[in-house]
Amino acid sequence: MKEIIIPDTEFSKRIINTQTAMKAADIDLLLAFSTESEPAYVRYYSDYWPSFETAAVLIPATGNPALLAGPESLTFAAARTKIKRIIQMMDFRESSQPDYPGSTLPTWNDIVSEFKPKKIGIAGWHMFPHTMMSDLKDAAGNCEIMNADEIIRAICIKKSENELNCLREAARISELGFKAVLEQIKPGMTEAQLAGIAAGAMLANGAESTGYPIWCCSGPNSTQAISRPTLRKVRESEIIHFSVGAKVAGYSASIGRPVVLGKCPESTYKFMQVGLDAMKMTIDLMQAGTLASEVAKKVHGYIIKQGYGETILYGPAHGCGQMECEFPFLETSSSFTLEENMVFMVDVFMGDVSMGQRWEDGVIVKNGTAEELSSYKRQLNILEV
Amino acid sequence: MKEIIIPDTEFSKRIINTQTAMKAADIDLLLAFSTESEPAYVRYYSDYWPSFETAAVLIPATGNPALLAGPESLTFAAARTKIKRIIQMMDFRESSQPDYPGSTLPTWNDIVSEFKPKKIGIAGWHMFPHTMMSDLKDAAGNCEIMNADEIIRAICIKKSENELNCLREAARISELGFKAVLEQIKPGMTEAQLAGIAAGAMLANGAESTGYPIWCCSGPNSTQAISRPTLRKVRESEIIHFSVGAKVAGYSASIGRPVVLGKCPESTYKFMQVGLDAMKMTIDLMQAGTLASEVAKKVHGYIIKQGYGETILYGPAHGCGQMECEFPFLETSSSFTLEENMVFMVDVFMGDVSMGQRWEDGVIVKNGTAEELSSYKRQLNILEV
Repeated sequence: MKEIIIPDTEFSKRIINTQTAMKAADIDLLLAFSTESEPAYVRYYSDYWPSFETAAVLIPATGNPALLAGPESLTFAAARTKIKRIIQMMDFRESSQPDYPGSTLPTWNDIVSEFKPKKIGIAGWHMFPHTMMSDLKDAAGNCEIMNADEIIRAICIKKSENELNCLREAARISELGFKAVLEQIKPGMTEAQLAGIAAGAMLANGAESTGYPIWCCSGPNSTQAISRPTLRKVRESEIIHFSVGAKVAGYSASIGRPVVLGKCPESTYKFMQVGLDAMKMTIDLMQAGTLASEVAKKVHGYIIKQGYGETILYGPAHGCGQMECEFPFLETSSSFTLEENMVFMVDVFMGDVSMGQRWEDGVIVKNGTAEELSSYKRQLNILEV
Repeated sequence: MKEIIIPDTEFSKRIINTQTAMKAADIDLLLAFSTESEPAYVRYYSDYWPSFETAAVLIPATGNPALLAGPESLTFAAARTKIKRIIQMMDFRESSQPDYPGSTLPTWNDIVSEFKPKKIGIAGWHMFPHTMMSDLKDAAGNCEIMNADEIIRAICIKKSENELNCLREAARISELGFKAVLEQIKPGMTEAQLAGIAAGAMLANGAESTGYPIWCCSGPNSTQAISRPTLRKVRESEIIHFSVGAKVAGYSASIGRPVVLGKCPESTYKFMQVGLDAMKMTIDLMQAGTLASEVAKKVHGYIIKQGYGETILYGPAHGCGQMECEFPFLETSSSFTLEENMVFMVDVFMGDVSMGQRWEDGVIVKNGTAEELSSYKRQLNILEV
């Protein structure tokens, strides 16, 4: 089977598109910053994704980009990056600030001397560490520094056919992760063990990693919209919900399902049915030309009408690409319109103090019915024990 | 089997110890910041560890601490935190800045109004986002803001018996992860698949998660000191090295080993033998009262003498605790002395352009011979195929 990748030509095109957008915004140097847990921007431009250390891609409005990496990542970065030039800098070392005796890596002064920027745009604005900003400002003098997240978002928001293929494959493998869970789950297994079964199955089936720190949360833990697995043993007759996602060539999908083992209490059954119906309603509404806020209002309206208004925490879908959860967010306040080849995770989370559930599948927005990235066992999964 | 945890009394003691240190440094408000990939400080004080969103623990010099969490993490945080008061703030939301229509969460102004700080210490200084720093400064006016990493480091550097038990258990489970790999590895498996086998085995044996994004790197990828697994298929007669680590109750261990399948070329054999010898030498030298720099000098001296000086990237050990790699770093420039109950990962990485290897095991420093956290298959692992 051919490995699904983003071709080199597309990486080149991304740089060119970004340079065009930079010129329009009068930005002459862009710095796209990423971390171990939020690797998207650096991966988008270079295919490299840092671990332990941080990284950035530096793009001048004209000329060749460079990858900025930490002191221990040279061979790792060199093996992955589509951007040939790598500049190692101490500011990208681990946050615990190891010593590297005798090291004489370049500094921001060297960057500023070479590129002579007048206006620097930073993407990953809300992650960018204040110490790095301070070092950059010291070097850059009176140069203006601005938030460039919107510039990259405009470029990334509609996915290319190659990106869609990565997401389709990530979703296919995510389904296999959840399938392995359904085949092996038994009362008494720990949440962490079940997460491990999903992770192992995805990595054996072509995922390069999980798309995020995947989880299983059960019983009282099911109320958690964001979670991490614990050593709690799953039991009969409680909601056990799974957020399982694979990463393929940098693109992360997810599948979310509640599961009940054995007898399902009536109140749980009704709760799950409303979640499932809200999920299906959202998928049906995700069509090009529709106002995002209208989708959120209709779905929330339905949930409220069913008597579960208090269980709503956020809108029923969010953007998906290199980060499993990325801009844009589909909320009752959203001002954008759905367009073809935007990709969303339909993500219906409902939770109160007693129980919670997530239903999640990706969709590619089309004119008319959306293409579903996953649909495996989108049903009430009440399993015999 | 009893779950290994840090007892509530120890969490309380950590707050008190920190308040004592804060008073000595004239800091009246401490903010310990953490992210999904660097959760240590928040976990240390609260047992909560964020995912997707960020978090901080706020400790006044006198009185009760609070956990600062994002808009989607309330039930998750409430289920984990030992700090009863949770304050949700927009600044801790995901970096892609989702909307929460109608939300009216507290701001830094509310924090400053309540605590009226004169001097704020920030731990996680080099991760702290510049936008959060800017919001905090706007609210705090002329209040001094300083780096408080050293304050927490001084408190964390020697581990308690409970912490040591978590690390012992994390190391025991890390060994099981590597054992599963040795039992199943075959030429043609992908690096990612092998990492999945290790992760699945650890999560089935009591790990709450992997201790970091674990990896396997093979052949040309073996030169990478920090890595992530790829879909490359492992082959005979090349170095395949593993960094496998489990997390238990927030504490992360690791085991690092090179493996060769089938016939081992002579140059590879010699290279691995020097690595193994350097590893054993380091463990022997890790004794209370020894200057850290002396250990690094002796081990590097040995490696240089064997003709592998060019393969050295960093010192032969680093601190270990909640982060698998944390302060202090054992380098030829280190000025500290080893003390009883400091915990280190002995981490001998050697790599040049053709091949690389990591040997890694944890040790607890003692008067006399160190206690080894792991030792499983610390040998030349040349496996028949």
